Amino acid sequence: MSHRKPGRLFFANPGPTNIPDSILRAMDHATVDFMGGDFLEVYDDAVAGLKRILFTEGEVFLYTASGHGAWEATIQNLFSPGDHILMPDAGYFSRTWGTMARQYGLEVEMPGTDWRRGPDVARIAERLASDKFHNIKAVCIVHNETSTGVALSMPEVRAAIDATNHPALLLADTISSFGSFEVRMADWGIDAVVGGSQKGLMLPAGLAFTAVSTKALEAHQHAKLSRYYFDWTKMLARRHRSFVGTVPVGPFYGLRESIRLIEAEGIEQVWHRHHRLAEATRRAVSIWSGNQGVSFFCTDPKRRSDSVTAVKMPDGHDAEAVRKIAYDRFNVSLGAGLEPLGGQLFRIGHMGDLNEPMLLGTLGVVEMSLRLARVPLARGGVDAAIDYLATA
Amino acid sequence: MSHRKPGRLFFANPGPTNIPDSILRAMDHATVDFMGGDFLEVYDDAVAGLKRILFTEGEVFLYTASGHGAWEATIQNLFSPGDHILMPDAGYFSRTWGTMARQYGLEVEMPGTDWRRGPDVARIAERLASDKFHNIKAVCIVHNETSTGVALSMPEVRAAIDATNHPALLLADTISSFGSFEVRMADWGIDAVVGGSQKGLMLPAGLAFTAVSTKALEAHQHAKLSRYYFDWTKMLARRHRSFVGTVPVGPFYGLRESIRLIEAEGIEQVWHRHHRLAEATRRAVSIWSGNQGVSFFCTDPKRRSDSVTAVKMPDGHDAEAVRKIAYDRFNVSLGAGLEPLGGQLFRIGHMGDLNEPMLLGTLGVVEMSLRLARVPLARGGVDAAIDYLATA
Amino acid sequence: MSHRKPGRLFFANPGPTNIPDSILRAMDHATVDFMGGDFLEVYDDAVAGLKRILFTEGEVFLYTASGHGAWEATIQNLFSPGDHILMPDAGYFSRTWGTMARQYGLEVEMPGTDWRRGPDVARIAERLASDKFHNIKAVCIVHNETSTGVALSMPEVRAAIDATNHPALLLADTISSFGSFEVRMADWGIDAVVGGSQKGLMLPAGLAFTAVSTKALEAHQHAKLSRYYFDWTKMLARRHRSFVGTVPVGPFYGLRESIRLIEAEGIEQVWHRHHRLAEATRRAVSIWSGNQGVSFFCTDPKRRSDSVTAVKMPDGHDAEAVRKIAYDRFNVSLGAGLEPLGGQLFRIGHMGDLNEPMLLGTLGVVEMSLRLARVPLARGGVDAAIDYLATA
Amino acid sequence: MSHRKPGRLFFANPGPTNIPDSILRAMDHATVDFMGGDFLEVYDDAVAGLKRILFTEGEVFLYTASGHGAWEATIQNLFSPGDHILMPDAGYFSRTWGTMARQYGLEVEMPGTDWRRGPDVARIAERLASDKFHNIKAVCIVHNETSTGVALSMPEVRAAIDATNHPALLLADTISSFGSFEVRMADWGIDAVVGGSQKGLMLPAGLAFTAVSTKALEAHQHAKLSRYYFDWTKMLARRHRSFVGTVPVGPFYGLRESIRLIEAEGIEQVWHRHHRLAEATRRAVSIWSGNQGVSFFCTDPKRRSDSVTAVKMPDGHDAEAVRKIAYDRFNVSLGAGLEPLGGQLFRIGHMGDLNEPMLLGTLGVVEMSLRLARVPLARGGVDAAIDYLATA
Repeated sequence: MSHRKPGRLFFANPGPTNIPDSILRAMDHATVDFMGGDFLEVYDDAVAGLKRILFTEGEVFLYTASGHGAWEATIQNLFSPGDHILMPDAGYFSRTWGTMARQYGLEVEMPGTDWRRGPDVARIAERLASDKFHNIKAVCIVHNETSTGVALSMPEVRAAIDATNHPALLLADTISSFGSFEVRMADWGIDAVVGGSQKGLMLPAGLAFTAVSTKALEAHQHAKLSRYYFDWTKMLARRHRSFVGTVPVGPFYGLRESIRLIEAEGIEQVWHRHHRLAEATRRAVSIWSGNQGVSFFCTDPKRRSDSVTAVKMPDGHDAEAVRKIAYDRFNVSLGAGLEPLGGQLFRIGHMGDLNEPMLLGTLGVVEMSLRLARVPLARGGVDAAIDYLATA
Repeated sequence: MSHRKPGRLFFANPGPTNIPDSILRAMDHATVDFMGGDFLEVYDDAVAGLKRILFTEGEVFLYTASGHGAWEATIQNLFSPGDHILMPDAGYFSRTWGTMARQYGLEVEMPGTDWRRGPDVARIAERLASDKFHNIKAVCIVHNETSTGVALSMPEVRAAIDATNHPALLLADTISSFGSFEVRMADWGIDAVVGGSQKGLMLPAGLAFTAVSTKALEAHQHAKLSRYYFDWTKMLARRHRSFVGTVPVGPFYGLRESIRLIEAEGIEQVWHRHHRLAEATRRAVSIWSGNQGVSFFCTDPKRRSDSVTAVKMPDGHDAEAVRKIAYDRFNVSLGAGLEPLGGQLFRIGHMGDLNEPMLLGTLGVVEMSLRLARVPLARGGVDAAIDYLATA
Repeated sequence: MSHRKPGRLFFANPGPTNIPDSILRAMDHATVDFMGGDFLEVYDDAVAGLKRILFTEGEVFLYTASGHGAWEATIQNLFSPGDHILMPDAGYFSRTWGTMARQYGLEVEMPGTDWRRGPDVARIAERLASDKFHNIKAVCIVHNETSTGVALSMPEVRAAIDATNHPALLLADTISSFGSFEVRMADWGIDAVVGGSQKGLMLPAGLAFTAVSTKALEAHQHAKLSRYYFDWTKMLARRHRSFVGTVPVGPFYGLRESIRLIEAEGIEQVWHRHHRLAEATRRAVSIWSGNQGVSFFCTDPKRRSDSVTAVKMPDGHDAEAVRKIAYDRFNVSLGAGLEPLGGQLFRIGHMGDLNEPMLLGTLGVVEMSLRLARVPLARGGVDAAIDYLATA
Repeated sequence: MSHRKPGRLFFANPGPTNIPDSILRAMDHATVDFMGGDFLEVYDDAVAGLKRILFTEGEVFLYTASGHGAWEATIQNLFSPGDHILMPDAGYFSRTWGTMARQYGLEVEMPGTDWRRGPDVARIAERLASDKFHNIKAVCIVHNETSTGVALSMPEVRAAIDATNHPALLLADTISSFGSFEVRMADWGIDAVVGGSQKGLMLPAGLAFTAVSTKALEAHQHAKLSRYYFDWTKMLARRHRSFVGTVPVGPFYGLRESIRLIEAEGIEQVWHRHHRLAEATRRAVSIWSGNQGVSFFCTDPKRRSDSVTAVKMPDGHDAEAVRKIAYDRFNVSLGAGLEPLGGQLFRIGHMGDLNEPMLLGTLGVVEMSLRLARVPLARGGVDAAIDYLATA
């Protein structure tokens, strides 16, 4: 590199996220045989831990893939061509999954929603109630829309389904919620949880998974979509009960360490910490929103995500200018607006291995970058965050 | 870990393979934005280097996946349901790819071959000549069958196709050849090269790719198989011209370093080194084969692979016993026979970041393990390898 | 570890200091022969770079030792028993070096100074002027007293010596200045610069050095103190021109990378950055000092150090309580007051690999910790720092 | 680097030695406060472990220094100017320590010995018996002369001292024995053990120590040599009971891991493994010595070291030519002859983190290099080593 930004990069994109040094070091490991006893011990420990923090005792199918691969795997393994699914369009990612399902020949019903509020659970309930013949095979929900910073209550969705006695599977994308805020797979009756390594698990991208209920495994028996690389049946026949082909070893040294860190802190304390740091972020944004400045993209305060805050620009201001200043001048990486929201918002990720000084440093740079980009704002956002963190 | 094997693990499986320290350290990298300028510089360098050592100027589509994923990607992107392909069954991996293609609705012609010799190229030519209506869309070849240690001459296959003026695409699995012995994509007229990170590139598993010719890209335009995660058209629309979804960053810091190492040594010197170390291995096996001992699984001396040697056990002896001794007592990991060859052979990988003392240490342990497992052998194999290496 | 503090430790002690990842990775290196050609190339590059950023072309003697060892080496190699030196007592470290010199039988004149201002250069000049017979062999100055945050102008000291035409050597401890703010050995006429790896060079502790002028090397010829491990004459006879015994290799992989980072940024830009971040710190402390809160330990604004700020507690408040809160609750490590200043002050290190968000995170935590420890303060310190950094 | 030697460097110098990956990774650690509670836990664990494997309950003074520094520390802390010590001259290192002691004003009696056999213990006993007035304050022994590959029996030396009822302290340099073969400080009545990190402890150079008996601590009370950096009295007053000045943190993360590895294997098993690998080396050298080839430098078979074998060249052959071939062509680093033995021998280190394939790879390269350098030898040395290792 010919240039040099001094100091540590503050990575405040909403994923991938900061990787603790001890995880990076654990993954910095010479090659071992993925069938050898030494590795299998590591593997089994890691997978058992993953189930504990997912609050499930079901199967967890792991893939060498990113989150998109895990969604593809889930669709291929649960459905047959022509199957009907309900996937509310609540943002970039839910729209992507819907499009993907259509590519595979599914009938995808994607009711539009106000992206700034997320799906109306009552309307999901109504739709299920109207589905007298139970054509709908699954309700697919993005637990936390990373593109908008809107989080949904999965228990509410579960209750809506239960209220109608509808047999549809409940699928949840927890990619940017799991490991950051509460996900209780068994208690909440989720049939398939799609997750990845690169957010709350604090690992690099590259490992993704679907955790499944017994009901989902049964549905899998009848699913006729073509598949091979992601085929659960093949996986179940293997010692690892996951993967087709080579099992990567590095990520499991990392995952074992990730679980150790999470459990040393306590999963509920992890959730609490995320909430606290998210709330500090919201205090800052609330202040900055004075003087017709930036605002919350999510208009429903109860749905503002504990892992990512999307900050909407005032009219006539480009979020990319703010991001560029933060990155070029202060070595802080913020998340961009994803199409069609490009330029309209930036996103502050506050997930994973984060603490107060990391957040305050990030917020300080956001405040400076807004000022330098001449975005109107009321000052004192960082002060408000300090105030909250010193007393909460 | 409650136990401890002292000293370094000698990893002599035929892939994944030894990862140089400088690659592991390069990958031991904090998270960066995969859209950020600093990373894109690394990414572009790495991909340009990959093309140089593939001897292609075409597109290279990269996936977060293992080799199986890359094969699936290649099938999905090149074919339509019902397409007819020719895939000689020459071992575990070619059989696997054929089965995979059938799962996706292709007509797969899998002529059986003598696994100990590999496909008869003349018969491929005959088959193409007989295909008057050019139903066969592609000839799919495993360049180096990792399961048997049999390598094929791709130029011979190319010549066979050319001799018949058949328009079929030529697809090659170079997973265990690329980076170890000669692969010249453009000169050899290969339309799709399937490769992975975890062999000659000396990286961990997790990154796989298809390099494609212009002819293959045209075929892609008409390919109707469902796809999303691996869809080339989506990839072409992205800045990275690869990946759907998250781009992993660590592997590209590693790949850039891998290219640097390969080019510092010189790709032709890398091939020469592999040949030299493979030949030393063969000298040892030749000696051991005395006294009705072990033998080469590959019966055609010209086709014995420069990246892996499969060693066949004499009747009544179990290869797993040898592997277990090597691993448990001497910390050397050898490759197992893959079904249906389990127990009948073990495989010595001699690929990637390997030199003379690493190989001699491995061969020394193989000789000890054969003795300890009471497998008949003529002694002096290591001596023969030393003799060769000291004079060649 | 049974506990876990989430997120990154913010290490704001005034040394050792934050080590960039690329330096840690460079040092994470397998053993090589310190006499081998590969290593000597690294070594020579690193040492040449060190001389460039010291602005010297003289010898630099390196030791496997901490800064105390480098001082011992300097004394042993320059003096004989009974030699008279002048070492103003300006804080913990200058006092330590004086005591050390006395242990070795030197006559050490240690005029007391106001620790909150540092030595009066005019008095040094007077003392030299009065030394008609040139008994004083050396003037020993701590360029930056890490214990007090008071920095001295070396050119002023040089001028004072020159004004008297006194032949004394000028020795400078630059342990906490070099690499953080301006040190120009040749231009400033310093005869021996004592430095270490663990501050501005951003390396772990363990490598220390003395850079010497020709005049110092001549003085060495007549120095009669016993020495072996640190003996410069033995070092000059070696290929490495440094070290007695084993040459450590890891630190030189690190030092080469450190030089690369410093020169990629530009040494003058490094100094400028330190000044800017120090000034932001001072803006915060200035605000906090309202309401009879904390104050600067250094009473002379021109001498406030650009690498460390010592913050004095108001009467009746214990600095250790503040440090404990910052460390236990927020994972920020601040420097303690060194005896006899224990409890009276804490120190904020702002040196090495530091940027705006790292500093703002630290200052945010200091503000919270002061509040939580019920230390009086005017709020808004972080805001003032943001204000300065956004506009300067 | 413009060149590239493929594969792993085989580091067979007799120290520093191979560092296990897990130790390198443990040391690849961000800066922490050496006074902070988290670090002190690591530190205390590491030091307690070090005492266990030294078989002592006494003080262990640790230094940021190499082995030479530890010897200097030991001399400074135990003696006064004019003190008389007995230090048999058995090789490069014992000669060095004697010279060092003379520099500090001691009367050093250095009886010459046959370097190919080491000191005659009976003559030590005679000398002590003749010292009626107990002028001799200490007997200083190099347990394992790294320069010659000759190891001495410390219990024999102890018995010789005891037989004469002489009150002299017994000092032992165990730098290249400790952690490789038996050292039992308390049982063997050693008063000061000098050791370092970079041999059997499998750490980088940079940490050295003296472990002391109660008797040595008493002697320290009366020792009048000047000292500061290495002063035990200052160390005893510190929380760490070691170091003057900065305490390095990285080495203690490494040392804790080193102890874990040693104890997971079992210290007696570590000794056994070293013996076994040394014996295999000797089998090879014995074979090579045919045809008037190389020979053992150590002429007493009972004293051939279990951590290093010095191989003497036949007349007219230069050891450096062999070393150069091994290093340049095969990436194996062997130890040189130290003056005055330069060119007359090379040394094979077989200590630390070593196993059978590592040793066999090294021996294979030695055999090839001897042949390529046209040194007479009987072939089959590696075969003999294999034979031994497969059956012992």
